[in-house]
Amino acid sequence: MDDCIFCKIISGDVPCYKIYEDEYVLAFLDINPVVNGHTLVIPKKHFVNIFDVDNFYLEKVTAAIKKISVHYNQKFDGINILNANDKSAQQSVFHLHFHIIPRTIDDGKDFWPYKEVLDKTDLKTMAERLKL
Amino acid sequence: MDDCIFCKIISGDVPCYKIYEDEYVLAFLDINPVVNGHTLVIPKKHFVNIFDVDNFYLEKVTAAIKKISVHYNQKFDGINILNANDKSAQQSVFHLHFHIIPRTIDDGKDFWPYKEVLDKTDLKTMAERLKL
Repeated sequence: MDDCIFCKIISGDVPCYKIYEDEYVLAFLDINPVVNGHTLVIPKKHFVNIFDVDNFYLEKVTAAIKKISVHYNQKFDGINILNANDKSAQQSVFHLHFHIIPRTIDDGKDFWPYKEVLDKTDLKTMAERLKL
Repeated sequence: MDDCIFCKIISGDVPCYKIYEDEYVLAFLDINPVVNGHTLVIPKKHFVNIFDVDNFYLEKVTAAIKKISVHYNQKFDGINILNANDKSAQQSVFHLHFHIIPRTIDDGKDFWPYKEVLDKTDLKTMAERLKL
């Protein structure tokens, strides 16, 4: 897509700090890192998010996420994987991407901000509403 | 694993509010939901996290995540996918699981808690350190 910053990174029109690349996937450092090693993994074909990505590219992206995670785990103490789909979920670049967030012991970060849970009484109703 | 709560859910020894099931994957409502529809997707074979899961099960889990996300997107306004690997990354149940967090417009939640970015000057060094 002409106006997609990630497509411009894929084409080489915009530079990046590359971590990994294969025929279908590119991974590079986030230019706005929230932790050291903050990495984005994207398909080299334009998809908006998980809703429109095809299974072939999703498998390739997932395999790369695993490969990078295993590699990073030798250098850090853990990994969070985060992904946002649609504006309401705080997606800001509309080309499917997964954040790999390397963690270190006592890094003081909190990627699970919600300690209070909802009222549980309607789980049964919710499951009936959502069941596939 | 005998002492794994998710393995007990898979075996049926512990009940759950099931959302989706196939030969390899189970999805059910989180008993401690932070949003309505908060769902966990797990492989039916025990893996600790992304570091030890095999590609076969990871593909099956990912395909289920996509299927559920597309389904939920008809009922909510967006989806976050979150995953934690190892204690330092705030993993609390040591059976691989992905959180599906349905979002609604103006739900007031924030699953991207870090607005301040790190000093960017060492991205080149970091990329050299982490490159695969």
